[in-house]
Amino acid sequence: MTQTAARPARNGVDVPTLFATLDAVKGAPQLADFQFRARNTWVSGTHNRTTIQGFYGAGQEDSSRTEAFVYDADHPAVLTGNGNGPTPVEFLLHAIAACLTSGLANIAAARGVNLTRVESTVEGDIDLLGILGLDPEVRNGYRQIRVSFVVEGDGTPEEMAALVEQSRRRSAVYDVLTNGTDVVVDVTTP
Amino acid sequence: MTQTAARPARNGVDVPTLFATLDAVKGAPQLADFQFRARNTWVSGTHNRTTIQGFYGAGQEDSSRTEAFVYDADHPAVLTGNGNGPTPVEFLLHAIAACLTSGLANIAAARGVNLTRVESTVEGDIDLLGILGLDPEVRNGYRQIRVSFVVEGDGTPEEMAALVEQSRRRSAVYDVLTNGTDVVVDVTTP
Repeated sequence: MTQTAARPARNGVDVPTLFATLDAVKGAPQLADFQFRARNTWVSGTHNRTTIQGFYGAGQEDSSRTEAFVYDADHPAVLTGNGNGPTPVEFLLHAIAACLTSGLANIAAARGVNLTRVESTVEGDIDLLGILGLDPEVRNGYRQIRVSFVVEGDGTPEEMAALVEQSRRRSAVYDVLTNGTDVVVDVTTP
Repeated sequence: MTQTAARPARNGVDVPTLFATLDAVKGAPQLADFQFRARNTWVSGTHNRTTIQGFYGAGQEDSSRTEAFVYDADHPAVLTGNGNGPTPVEFLLHAIAACLTSGLANIAAARGVNLTRVESTVEGDIDLLGILGLDPEVRNGYRQIRVSFVVEGDGTPEEMAALVEQSRRRSAVYDVLTNGTDVVVDVTTP
C-alpha cells in the first residue's frame, strides 16, 4: 500500500481507495460484474415514476442505500402531458453529463490535477416527426447530442482537455449512447 | 374536429388534444423540431448535479416550467463515491422505462384501451472491467438491458402486448439506446 498511500485525496476523490479498488478488481475480476436496476410505475397519462435502490456488484447485493431514489417523468403540456417531470429523453442528457463529470473528477485526481470548476451544458436535437409516426425517414431518437464542458483547475489547457478525452473514452453512458446496446422488452398480462 | 371530439380522454390522456397535436404537426412539420437541454455542475468527487428546465419545441422556447428539475448523480461507496444519487447508468434505466410507459399510455388511449396498471422492472448488466481500463475486450457500457412490463386493463393479452410493441417501435429512448447516436464532446478551459 506504500504506492497508493502516497496519493492524497484530491477533488473529493479518495485516491488511495480508488487505486485499492482497482488492485482488488485486478485480483478478482468477477468483482466487476454489476447489475443495476430500476422499477417504474405508471401514474396517469404520460406521467410515471421510477424508483432506484438496490444493485448487485462487487460480489454481493448492495445494502448501502437505505432509501430509494425516486424520479418522475412526464411530457410537457405542448406534448399533451402535464409536466410532472422532465421527458424521458432529457434524462439521457443528465446521464451523459453526469457520467463524463464523475469520470473526469476521478481521472483528474488520479493524475494529480486539482479541479476548481467543472460545468457542462448538454443539447440534444430531435425531430419528433419520428415518434409521431409522421415521417418514416426520421428516426425516433436524438440525431445529435452535444456536451460542452468548462473545466478550471491547476492543469494546463492540454491536460484539462486530456482529462475530458480520457473520461469520454472510459464512459459507460457515452458508450451506450454512441454504440447502442441490446435492449430486450417483454410483457406479462396477468 | 368532429372526429377527435368523439374520442374521450382515457388513461389520463387528453385524446382530442393528442390527435389535434398530430394534425397540427402534419400541417406544419417544423413544429416537430425540438431541442432538449441540461446543465450539470460538479460538486465533489463523483458527485454532480444536473438542472433541467428550458427546451425549444413547437416553434418556440418553452415557458411552461417555472422551476427547474434538479437531479444528483454519484457513485456508491463500493465505487469510491458517496452515494449522493444514483449512478449515471441507472438514469438510463429510468429513461427507457419512462419512455416506453409514456408511449404505452398514449397508444392505449388512442386505441381505446383502458389501462388499470402498468409496471416495469429494468435490469442492466455491465462488466466494470471496461470502464476501469482492466480489459480492452470489455465494453464500457451495458452489455444488455431488459425491460419487463406488467400491463393490466380491458384489452386482450394480444392487444396489451401490441401496445408495448408499438411503444417500443416509437420510443425515442429505445432508438438511442439500441442504435446509438452522434455525441459530440468539447471543452473550454478559461
